[in-house]
Amino acid sequence: MSFSPLIQQLITALRCLPSVGPKSAQRMAFHLLERDSEGALALSEILQKAVAEVGHCRQCRTLSEHELCEICKSESRDRSILCVLESPVDVLAIEQTGGYNGLYFVLSGHLSPIDGIGPEDLGIDKLLDYIHATEINEIILATNPTVEGEATAHFIAAQVKELGIKVTRIAHGVPVGGELEFVDGGTLAHAMAGRRSLL
Amino acid sequence: MSFSPLIQQLITALRCLPSVGPKSAQRMAFHLLERDSEGALALSEILQKAVAEVGHCRQCRTLSEHELCEICKSESRDRSILCVLESPVDVLAIEQTGGYNGLYFVLSGHLSPIDGIGPEDLGIDKLLDYIHATEINEIILATNPTVEGEATAHFIAAQVKELGIKVTRIAHGVPVGGELEFVDGGTLAHAMAGRRSLL
Repeated sequence: MSFSPLIQQLITALRCLPSVGPKSAQRMAFHLLERDSEGALALSEILQKAVAEVGHCRQCRTLSEHELCEICKSESRDRSILCVLESPVDVLAIEQTGGYNGLYFVLSGHLSPIDGIGPEDLGIDKLLDYIHATEINEIILATNPTVEGEATAHFIAAQVKELGIKVTRIAHGVPVGGELEFVDGGTLAHAMAGRRSLL
Repeated sequence: MSFSPLIQQLITALRCLPSVGPKSAQRMAFHLLERDSEGALALSEILQKAVAEVGHCRQCRTLSEHELCEICKSESRDRSILCVLESPVDVLAIEQTGGYNGLYFVLSGHLSPIDGIGPEDLGIDKLLDYIHATEINEIILATNPTVEGEATAHFIAAQVKELGIKVTRIAHGVPVGGELEFVDGGTLAHAMAGRRSLL
């Protein structure tokens, strides 16, 4: 048996959400139609509005419905530090630590020559323009600790080298609260090499 | 830091989906805005359309965009057997077994006096009207094997008793492919009591 075409279309459309498989999509569709048509209509409306209005911040390129995002607009942020990230979600991750008060620059992912993604595709040219145009003392490269993220960080570091700005990379090491036994070798080697004096 | 209001609204709206928590909603919102605005718009459109057009089948009360659903319309179904279920998803579950060719009647859940849900709220009156109006030989009560589902099944059985129609309840027993060791006592007791002769 198949569902009536409209229900089937709804199930298919719900599959565009990340990590929603056929079973979850089915459950979602039935839930919305049976129990939460109000929620469904609200979701429909806001989806349309968000897609139409949310764009990228002119300065840091994170997602924002304004030309300049809240962080770039804020008077209380330290404009001498710039943290470079791979995606807008990472901005949130760092903001939630509450320990960083500088500005951000969001790339569109990481370098991936195999997929034909080069520096221009990430907006590294725009990053360099931005660095040239403002007075920054430190650039923190916080791309993901993956091979591609590392490559992207090193590429940017090389480009910025001549400007005499301090360029740092977030630390690799053992995660807080984890057990040494379960940490992979690469991370452990980084943690040993990056050891710090306690006294 | 909070997101820009529109993104926050989208995240909140996505939480109306079942088993989508704050983190998943965030990931979904960013995915849609960054990578799949087309999918988001398609979803928005079909949500609106489905909520507007999908209603309940006049006869079996399952979800359908037509007045009469495909199953009730079908000429090839056995109209002498009626399977009573708690929700439209259950229709699909039974259809997918491929072993049932009768008709369905979908209640709006189960009896739950504690929540003030009585027989009229479930549509049991409509079920009885339907049974009276047609020639049915057997009613299969396939409400969920929960306390409320059992109570609902017994309530319907009592109502139908006088009509002299065969009323059956789906079997309780050990699930196929499971291990006896992990089956709960109640189920096991049912499985023992409901044992069948092999020879």
